[in-house]
Amino acid sequence: MHAIKFKNNRLFYLDQTKLPRKEVWRECVTLKDAYGAIKMLRVRGAPLIGVFGAYALYCALKDFPEHNKERFFITFEKAKAYLAQSRPTAVNLFWALGRIKKAAYCTKDKGVTEIKKVMLKEAQRIHREDIELCRRIGMHGVRLIKENDRILTHCNTGFLATAGGGTALSIIYEAAKKYKHIRVYIDETRPLLQGARLTSWELLKKNLKATLICDAVASDLMRKGMIDKIIVGADRITKNGDVANKIGTYNIAVSARYHKVPFYIAAPHSTFDMALEKGKDIPIEERDPGEVTKVLGKVLIAPEHVSVYNPAFDVTPHTLVTAIITDRGIIRPPYRRNIKKVFSA
Amino acid sequence: MHAIKFKNNRLFYLDQTKLPRKEVWRECVTLKDAYGAIKMLRVRGAPLIGVFGAYALYCALKDFPEHNKERFFITFEKAKAYLAQSRPTAVNLFWALGRIKKAAYCTKDKGVTEIKKVMLKEAQRIHREDIELCRRIGMHGVRLIKENDRILTHCNTGFLATAGGGTALSIIYEAAKKYKHIRVYIDETRPLLQGARLTSWELLKKNLKATLICDAVASDLMRKGMIDKIIVGADRITKNGDVANKIGTYNIAVSARYHKVPFYIAAPHSTFDMALEKGKDIPIEERDPGEVTKVLGKVLIAPEHVSVYNPAFDVTPHTLVTAIITDRGIIRPPYRRNIKKVFSA
Repeated sequence: MHAIKFKNNRLFYLDQTKLPRKEVWRECVTLKDAYGAIKMLRVRGAPLIGVFGAYALYCALKDFPEHNKERFFITFEKAKAYLAQSRPTAVNLFWALGRIKKAAYCTKDKGVTEIKKVMLKEAQRIHREDIELCRRIGMHGVRLIKENDRILTHCNTGFLATAGGGTALSIIYEAAKKYKHIRVYIDETRPLLQGARLTSWELLKKNLKATLICDAVASDLMRKGMIDKIIVGADRITKNGDVANKIGTYNIAVSARYHKVPFYIAAPHSTFDMALEKGKDIPIEERDPGEVTKVLGKVLIAPEHVSVYNPAFDVTPHTLVTAIITDRGIIRPPYRRNIKKVFSA
Repeated sequence: MHAIKFKNNRLFYLDQTKLPRKEVWRECVTLKDAYGAIKMLRVRGAPLIGVFGAYALYCALKDFPEHNKERFFITFEKAKAYLAQSRPTAVNLFWALGRIKKAAYCTKDKGVTEIKKVMLKEAQRIHREDIELCRRIGMHGVRLIKENDRILTHCNTGFLATAGGGTALSIIYEAAKKYKHIRVYIDETRPLLQGARLTSWELLKKNLKATLICDAVASDLMRKGMIDKIIVGADRITKNGDVANKIGTYNIAVSARYHKVPFYIAAPHSTFDMALEKGKDIPIEERDPGEVTKVLGKVLIAPEHVSVYNPAFDVTPHTLVTAIITDRGIIRPPYRRNIKKVFSA
């Protein structure tokens, strides 16, 4: 199961806005295609847009003629800046584009053809690495799970959100291999319903026991003692362990604290932004009010001219996070110290 | 503005499932009409279904022939039991039907025509009283509001939920008369979106400053210090002050406690069930999974066969409630003692 494919020097992606009704694959040819695919969430999930962005930057330049290296780098920078604007909150995209840039500049004395080859190699390396990061997150995280656990998750963090088996869902998939009775509760995740549309679809495909709920039902389940653990993903984590993730995450974290339910974040090291001190520094994307007033662009559910507040992400302070499960192991408080340790190792 | 009308001995209601797109009025002729209207939420809101149920019981019997009083009361009991089954959680319906029954039985020595007259008078009394209860809730509640308050509300508790100006919204309407800068945040209230569809529509009609949010955004707003007060309605309140209300209410109450935001319940005395000790005793209606997987019966947002948990209500323990605003004044903790006081006065 994959959400993107790179084949015969061409980039393809599964249009996630069409799920769960249809599995539509599209080709990403131009830079505008790539920008639109990310912006419109046809390709989404912090790790996946990193991998996709890396390939897309290569694809935008792969037919660039050999002779003019100076213009090549001008075009490169423009393309990179343009792609980086597609979504402001998830850091993995900037991280991946930064790696492609570094690879390209390391080869800048060679010819354009050679530079392009190096760019592709780096994109493929990011791709392979992401698969491996997912595997490692699953391997580390499964140690926190027990037989009969009832796990709540939010948004989508599986193979539709990464190049591999996911972040939070990778742990759940590992747990389902190891134990017989794992039950998953899925927050539908308004407004764009990634939980309902994508996570339900993934878990049904994997034959897992899963129950879909409206977001505000999670607290009621916790009150009834029906949730043992919560695992969600992340779009950016700062040096002190604050976490930007899909809107609604903070709400769950607060309720988890009140009900004394462990609240875990699962993310690869590429989701950490070691340039930012704390959550307040993370830019939060506000999206179109129409996402709230018109469900999936189809059914109008409110008067058209009502004012709407529609942040795509929220920030959960590290004080509410039980542990952060990464490809490099499980990080526990005190976060500032322990994150630093992992990144200087 | 009204959600039901009784005119020329006939009962009409605004079909709330068609809002905000269309204002469709329907006549309630048969008992089955009434049952369906309540069950399918074409008429909803705890106080309103009380008033509507009272009229509907009368309408079901208004053409009953004079001669057979014994059969009249058998039919009466059947009709009452049938209507009472339409929704199990809100207590106002049972309360109103009980009042009609009491009135009918007090006149049982008279002829059927006379009994029917008394039933109608009682329904009209309940109707007038509900308008007055709303006014009083608003009058008491407005004392808790200050200029510039930003108030969060959930579901719909206005003139679409009562025969008068509402419960929680009645307070907001009073506040908007008294102060210039009141801002309302409206939880969309999944799955049936009463906040998005009905409260937005009401507040726009009343020209109030209102902002619609997805349910899980409320916590984020509280974290940012953007909510000063929360006021919601209730479907049933037990002797100890526990509150059954629209699913999602408990989630807000938990977050309010964490962020130290006052959390108020607004309800008429008919919402108190003095036969029940505590929230655990309240039957909670579970509704069709299709309400979650198919938004407003139109757009499928999840794989069709996914398992769903869809409770219509949740119970907020009294420990999370700052005060209960009733037509008889504001009740504060300790609730058991203070509720008893109000009901024995």
